[in-house]
Amino acid sequence: MSKILVFGHKNPDTDAITSAISFSYLKNQLGEKTEAVALGELNEETAYALNYFNVAAPRVVETVANETDTVYLVDHNEAQQSVADIAEVEVASVVDHHRIANFETTNPLYYRAEPVGCTNTIILKLFKENDVVIPKNIAGLMLSAIVSDTLLFKSPTCTSEDEAAAKELAELAEVDLESYGLDLLKAGTNMGDKSAEELIDLDAKSFSMGDKNVRIAQINVVDVDDVFSKQEAIVEAIEQTNLNNNYDLFLLVVTNILDSDSIVLAYGNPVQAVENAFGIELKDHKALLKGVVSRKKQVVPQLTEELTK
Amino acid sequence: MSKILVFGHKNPDTDAITSAISFSYLKNQLGEKTEAVALGELNEETAYALNYFNVAAPRVVETVANETDTVYLVDHNEAQQSVADIAEVEVASVVDHHRIANFETTNPLYYRAEPVGCTNTIILKLFKENDVVIPKNIAGLMLSAIVSDTLLFKSPTCTSEDEAAAKELAELAEVDLESYGLDLLKAGTNMGDKSAEELIDLDAKSFSMGDKNVRIAQINVVDVDDVFSKQEAIVEAIEQTNLNNNYDLFLLVVTNILDSDSIVLAYGNPVQAVENAFGIELKDHKALLKGVVSRKKQVVPQLTEELTK
Repeated sequence: MSKILVFGHKNPDTDAITSAISFSYLKNQLGEKTEAVALGELNEETAYALNYFNVAAPRVVETVANETDTVYLVDHNEAQQSVADIAEVEVASVVDHHRIANFETTNPLYYRAEPVGCTNTIILKLFKENDVVIPKNIAGLMLSAIVSDTLLFKSPTCTSEDEAAAKELAELAEVDLESYGLDLLKAGTNMGDKSAEELIDLDAKSFSMGDKNVRIAQINVVDVDDVFSKQEAIVEAIEQTNLNNNYDLFLLVVTNILDSDSIVLAYGNPVQAVENAFGIELKDHKALLKGVVSRKKQVVPQLTEELTK
Repeated sequence: MSKILVFGHKNPDTDAITSAISFSYLKNQLGEKTEAVALGELNEETAYALNYFNVAAPRVVETVANETDTVYLVDHNEAQQSVADIAEVEVASVVDHHRIANFETTNPLYYRAEPVGCTNTIILKLFKENDVVIPKNIAGLMLSAIVSDTLLFKSPTCTSEDEAAAKELAELAEVDLESYGLDLLKAGTNMGDKSAEELIDLDAKSFSMGDKNVRIAQINVVDVDDVFSKQEAIVEAIEQTNLNNNYDLFLLVVTNILDSDSIVLAYGNPVQAVENAFGIELKDHKALLKGVVSRKKQVVPQLTEELTK
């Protein structure tokens, strides 16, 4: 039998990459033949983590049906966030912490979702349930994902389970949680050398909401001016990508990880839905989202509700 | 806050009823306020189990949004198998062992599916993961569900985990697994006093397959003549129910639990798909399905594949 491929979502973030690595490692220890792969290149934060713990980046794939008939998904389930030919393979396992949508199987499967802040918090449980020891470097990657997804426990998606998991993993990884965590987050906020096109695609996901095709990109920064100094080029890039990909609506959410606020920039149709969903008034397509740091919990449900009314 | 309602699928079988009871019990021990309810009356097998272990039947409900905003689903996820107003409430947890289809949430949730023979095999794990003791009568109900869903371990859906769980639960329930199991199964095969309308609705589920609306009913018997002596009335009832409910295709699968074979009776359009899916030739709409006892594993995937070609 060919290897089972394990992967997170397109435009992978630290959790998407490292949960593929940790889940694949666990499955291989249990006697399966799996390989972690990626649906895109590493971002700078993830590259920092892999370099720090000396783990090679997973191979990037465009399609999977050419090399396997079975896949495991981590950190996502929605088809439009997955590999292009997902419909041609069997999804036998999913480990995730998002809503379930646009996902369907023909056969029974293993599906483990919990409403926690990070996929790796769930994978830590799976290691324990299966009595498999976590090596130091894998623990370090899992820790990095929890820090990344919860913004060092400041996101409203963060649960007490995520905090406890991070502490446990920091000990296994032999790092100081606070100082490693800050260094990791800072590594991901270096926007200086990114083009407008790169900025709006760095951590972008597509969603079906009602009959609308919505794209939501998020950028974490310590200074929002790092991004908005390029606003004109960014607006051009958004309008071009909406056109090229038939996105009805594009939201760019720029999150200040120190203040825990975001600024949203919205283009497309109906832009009014963005104002209604968040009770804001867009000025020149832009508004402050006070206290908003989580796309999953503070952006997607609100906008979905508005667009499916 | 109002009570969270916990329920299995419409036309409930033993697993649907008892997994609602066992999962609700577990959640209440963990400090939540939940109530197991049912989307239909007990079948005779389930009534036997509840009577044997002296547990009251759950209240039957037609709708849920009138009394709660949050529900937990067990033993199903597909909307057409769930309560009529499922779209009006939030599904916060699912414990299931079926394929995932026609299921979508706005928010992250707890979803635990495993490809095992019975929902209660998974719920046994949840009791252990949460360090909650299972009382004798709940153990007896959970055991009954495993016996029922696996036909005393003879179904191809049965895994070594189901067998181990059943043995463990039989000890807790203080019953002899083999003799209690046979008595339970026999209690469910008494078809003598059922009308044709009752027979085709006893354990029937609806499925979306491609653009077809498919209804698949299953009846477990020790003698198929118990059912086919009423074939004429059954055919009339099927044609009537197809008409009344806009079912494109109706399959009645009559399973001999001693031989582990089934006979399928198929009416509707395209009946040819049934022949292709199982490599059979229907004679007077009827054919033997050699070795077929599991709707979930040996009927639904094959027919779905044929109808989505």
